[in-house]
Amino acid sequence: MSEPDAFRLEPIGVVRSVLRDRAAAPRQGEEGAPDAWIEVAPRAARGLSGIRVGDELLVITWLHEARRDVLKVHPRSDERLPLAGVFATRSPDRPNPLGLHRVIVHKVAGRRLRVGPLEAIDGTPVVDIKPVLRCGRKETRRETP
Amino acid sequence: MSEPDAFRLEPIGVVRSVLRDRAAAPRQGEEGAPDAWIEVAPRAARGLSGIRVGDELLVITWLHEARRDVLKVHPRSDERLPLAGVFATRSPDRPNPLGLHRVIVHKVAGRRLRVGPLEAIDGTPVVDIKPVLRCGRKETRRETP
Repeated sequence: MSEPDAFRLEPIGVVRSVLRDRAAAPRQGEEGAPDAWIEVAPRAARGLSGIRVGDELLVITWLHEARRDVLKVHPRSDERLPLAGVFATRSPDRPNPLGLHRVIVHKVAGRRLRVGPLEAIDGTPVVDIKPVLRCGRKETRRETP
Repeated sequence: MSEPDAFRLEPIGVVRSVLRDRAAAPRQGEEGAPDAWIEVAPRAARGLSGIRVGDELLVITWLHEARRDVLKVHPRSDERLPLAGVFATRSPDRPNPLGLHRVIVHKVAGRRLRVGPLEAIDGTPVVDIKPVLRCGRKETRRETP
């Protein structure tokens, strides 16, 4: 394989949460994470058009406190579990520390979305937002009466 | 919001596919996409440890042919549908053109994974691989007999 280039990822927003540090954060949203705000940057705000209360979204974050030089971890930081490759786990420590969070939209307030549950800590950069696709319910359905 | 930094995303692998150009690619994997190889770079190969045939994975790609200056699109490129914000659609054109692909592992051959269905075209950089999490079936289960 020829050596690939690198790419410049530019945050489109930021997480505003009561979670302040990584040690306090649940491992997954479903494990007791709170609701949080996603504050989208003015330059990207038009991209939110069409998002409505009740939508299910996938939020992709940059886990800025993660280590990028780790390729094997004990799953869930449990040292009784054998080491596994980071691509077989959801460890935040990985070569590109992208976080993937499935959330429900509770409020839409201009360029801010109230969503949950979200285990990312306050200040975590948001790099993308996508709708959850369901079988037999394509995104076009959202756009038609 | 203070202006956030940008981040350097480094490919961990590449898609090897019979799909050669974007016009020929299905919009979603479930819409008739073929199987493909994911070829992981030697420096990241240890991160694959624990991935097995039959696993469901989320592959995150960098859609290198996408436009980054687009914030509104016609969903599914259908001009009869009203414009929607890119974050309410799965358009590849978006500020950070990350692709998210849910696939099944069909073969594990060293640092190559045969997976499908995958609608990404040949040469698409892969930036992360994560296991699909299911309710009540945590990743720890994968690691114990």
